[in-house]
Amino acid sequence: MASVSAALKSRVRRPQLLNKVMKAEETLPFFENGQYLGWSGFTGVGYPKMIPTALADHVESNNLQGKMKFNLFVGASTGAETEDRWAGLDMIDRRSPHQVGRNIKKGINEGRIRFADKHLSMFPQDLMYGYYTKDKANGKLDVVIVEATAITEAGEIVPGASVGATPELIQMADKVIIEVNTRIPSFEGLHDITMGSNPPHRKPYLVMNTQDRIGTTSIPIDQEKIIAIVESDRPDNTGPNTPADANSEAIANHLIEFLSHEVKQGRLPENLLPLQSGIGNIANAVIGGLAKSPFKDVTVFTEVLQDTFLEFFDSDKLAFASATSIRFSPDGFDHFYKNWEKYKDRLLLRTQQVSNAPEIIRRLGCIAMNTPVEVDMYAHANSTLVCGSGMLNGLGGSADFLRNSKLSIMHTPSARASKKDPTGVSCIVPMATHVDQTEHDLDVIVTEQGLADVRGLCPRDRAQVIIDNCAHPDYKPMLQDYFDFATKKCLAAGRGHEPHMLDKAFKMHTNLLENGTMKIDSW
Amino acid sequence: MASVSAALKSRVRRPQLLNKVMKAEETLPFFENGQYLGWSGFTGVGYPKMIPTALADHVESNNLQGKMKFNLFVGASTGAETEDRWAGLDMIDRRSPHQVGRNIKKGINEGRIRFADKHLSMFPQDLMYGYYTKDKANGKLDVVIVEATAITEAGEIVPGASVGATPELIQMADKVIIEVNTRIPSFEGLHDITMGSNPPHRKPYLVMNTQDRIGTTSIPIDQEKIIAIVESDRPDNTGPNTPADANSEAIANHLIEFLSHEVKQGRLPENLLPLQSGIGNIANAVIGGLAKSPFKDVTVFTEVLQDTFLEFFDSDKLAFASATSIRFSPDGFDHFYKNWEKYKDRLLLRTQQVSNAPEIIRRLGCIAMNTPVEVDMYAHANSTLVCGSGMLNGLGGSADFLRNSKLSIMHTPSARASKKDPTGVSCIVPMATHVDQTEHDLDVIVTEQGLADVRGLCPRDRAQVIIDNCAHPDYKPMLQDYFDFATKKCLAAGRGHEPHMLDKAFKMHTNLLENGTMKIDSW
Repeated sequence: MASVSAALKSRVRRPQLLNKVMKAEETLPFFENGQYLGWSGFTGVGYPKMIPTALADHVESNNLQGKMKFNLFVGASTGAETEDRWAGLDMIDRRSPHQVGRNIKKGINEGRIRFADKHLSMFPQDLMYGYYTKDKANGKLDVVIVEATAITEAGEIVPGASVGATPELIQMADKVIIEVNTRIPSFEGLHDITMGSNPPHRKPYLVMNTQDRIGTTSIPIDQEKIIAIVESDRPDNTGPNTPADANSEAIANHLIEFLSHEVKQGRLPENLLPLQSGIGNIANAVIGGLAKSPFKDVTVFTEVLQDTFLEFFDSDKLAFASATSIRFSPDGFDHFYKNWEKYKDRLLLRTQQVSNAPEIIRRLGCIAMNTPVEVDMYAHANSTLVCGSGMLNGLGGSADFLRNSKLSIMHTPSARASKKDPTGVSCIVPMATHVDQTEHDLDVIVTEQGLADVRGLCPRDRAQVIIDNCAHPDYKPMLQDYFDFATKKCLAAGRGHEPHMLDKAFKMHTNLLENGTMKIDSW
Repeated sequence: MASVSAALKSRVRRPQLLNKVMKAEETLPFFENGQYLGWSGFTGVGYPKMIPTALADHVESNNLQGKMKFNLFVGASTGAETEDRWAGLDMIDRRSPHQVGRNIKKGINEGRIRFADKHLSMFPQDLMYGYYTKDKANGKLDVVIVEATAITEAGEIVPGASVGATPELIQMADKVIIEVNTRIPSFEGLHDITMGSNPPHRKPYLVMNTQDRIGTTSIPIDQEKIIAIVESDRPDNTGPNTPADANSEAIANHLIEFLSHEVKQGRLPENLLPLQSGIGNIANAVIGGLAKSPFKDVTVFTEVLQDTFLEFFDSDKLAFASATSIRFSPDGFDHFYKNWEKYKDRLLLRTQQVSNAPEIIRRLGCIAMNTPVEVDMYAHANSTLVCGSGMLNGLGGSADFLRNSKLSIMHTPSARASKKDPTGVSCIVPMATHVDQTEHDLDVIVTEQGLADVRGLCPRDRAQVIIDNCAHPDYKPMLQDYFDFATKKCLAAGRGHEPHMLDKAFKMHTNLLENGTMKIDSW
């Protein structure tokens, strides 16, 4: 038994568990090639750090690259020093449902890692259905590693800055190792934990307002499953906040103008409806813009909170926020911990099965705002694959929110730079090379050029308003020509509901792959 | 005031309303060009017949084609003698969210009708949000025509064989006309009616089992809105049942074997989970197969009941069925009416907002089974557009169920006939020309060739099992070649997560359009 620090003793309130304390290196014998592992964590916070690092050190120093590979399941992404390092050491065979990192992306796109992205609301239930472990005799995950910021008298786990899929991972675990993080404060009281249940035994989620609590503040766990407790002294490895730029501020302005119009028309209440906002600089600009807007008493029902939500809270315009993860920058976390008393009763963290539940999102009538790879003229969006093939990070919760919200909004710059051309990539294309959000799901498309309200429109009407309002001037004539040619051809052939020329639909993309820009001379 | 028949008197239990009885022709002055109209009805049952026919007669006999056009909103499709005749007379400008008929399809695909298909669960709420009427001053539908089989003492409407979007259409109506159908029996007691409500005032749907009732048996209506009552003596114009064939029976056998395997593995209870089944001959074969299967005490939570459900009830293996519409053949309806006492407590009809609610479908963990236009090798499905452009009927409720069910199954023949070639169309393609169901939504693909279980698999693994198990022998080598070439090329380029060749992805389709078959000599 390892020596137990005073810090660790103060966090682990169940004395029996102190008998299981060991160093990270001492857990190595629990792991072997081919195992199914689960980790806590979501969007790079609340993930285990000590043991994944010890395992990576072990593989690296013993040249076991490719000989110690795991099937790895985490609610969403983790810090780069863990899963991305594992990917670099060829330690990952299968991975679901989301990831972030240069090496893991490379491993997926070069065929070494078998990655399946999935709606983040669905991943935990599919795990409990046994869909990821259906070839295993007992259907269980071999080892689940969970980060805690405290353990209660009953041995229940108090997570850190994310809940994610931890309750379900623990339910499906054969063995559990807990990393107790003594470097960051205990988050006790901030969580609203519900355990996974399978049909036909499910009940409604009785969340009628963003602040409604329906669970407990810690995660129950069968104590027999716990095989080790490891102290962790490493913070979540988050980076700096992505600042807004001129484009993202223009987008935010268009959006706030639109929301004001909807309030005026009586289609939204004066304090709007619960907001969901994705990750990145546009999301930051939108939330930053709302902090300066006339809207008051706003609520947030989302997946992840970024730094600008602190600003939103501090403006006193944000009444309450519900999420499954708090992904602040190091500076943001400092500010958050220092003002804990001010924030703690105004936010809560749920499981991702609840934060992203279609049931609740539709009931609350959320306003969903997310950034795609590209949107097409008929309002399908690609959220995942560059040129239809290359994985970025995965679907995340985008479709949970965009399918079910009252207002489903996609925001994107109208064009991005390619290596050769500052506007070499149009984010408005004739046909999306991969569809994650269908034309039946999106209500509004907005770029720095303007906003297209496509609600209730037929595809041909949608295309015209998207080209007119959203396309970059470099691409507007090109897109208009495609639309006009395709319309003429398809109407004449009696299949003109949604006009396309299948032999030319991806011509802008193939030009990008071959010549470094989507700009083409003719169709 | 028109004379009131004894039959009508017996159905209209609120005497004041008898003052509003008139003939269909007498309602013509209520209608004018450009109005927004709503009709009751869903999948060709429960729609108004008398007034739409009178209006069509009026347009035809006065040569008003194209001069009396309406924006028409119905829960789903209606009988051909109404909306399809209207389309033939150029009486429809906008139409949502679903339709069936040769003329209406033609009008949509030749650009005369602006059609927007939408998830059937979402259409009524979008209507109540004002998304279809956002340019109108008061945001209301001008006239809503509803078929009833009775009117209660309180003036509430008892629908016929469907509920659909009728409650929300009535809520959004400026004026309402009721057609009371005295030709068919009163369906009183069969419905479970809930009215639409907008966020932030929504509550959970407390349906925990298929048979749970959460509403009333008739639709409340502001009596001031009712401007006319018209007696109707016409039955729902349904056609004969689509019989199973060898292919659909092979598909049903694969499916029943798979479900048995899932029960054996403990992933499904012995009585399965609530079934959803689409329309058509495969659905008929599957339900017919279940009636002869070992499964007992099965429940159904679906959108539409077809004739084979009668067989399923009669086998005593179906315990209860919930739907929003009963679309039997004329013979099926006869059998149903004759045995009313036997069926009436074993089924109920909800609004489409509830029958298709993501909330309930996910809670119950339904087993969803639907037929697509085509499925691609990575498990995206096209449910709506032939060759990416030509509208068939619309999305319907397929995505409501396939996104949210515990098991999401697409069943299709592996190939269909083109005009030139009995297997000229492969239903398994490299890339779907339109995506309504994403790779993140589907669990199982099944054709008469076999079944592909793609749960938890990465795209490359999915492709191999779909090609191996589902593709038609005429297309298997072609699909394998595409997959192999694309994989080699994309892995080498570092974008091989989901390999595609964008310049060739639709080559089979363009060959079909140009040469009448998807069979190509080389890639």
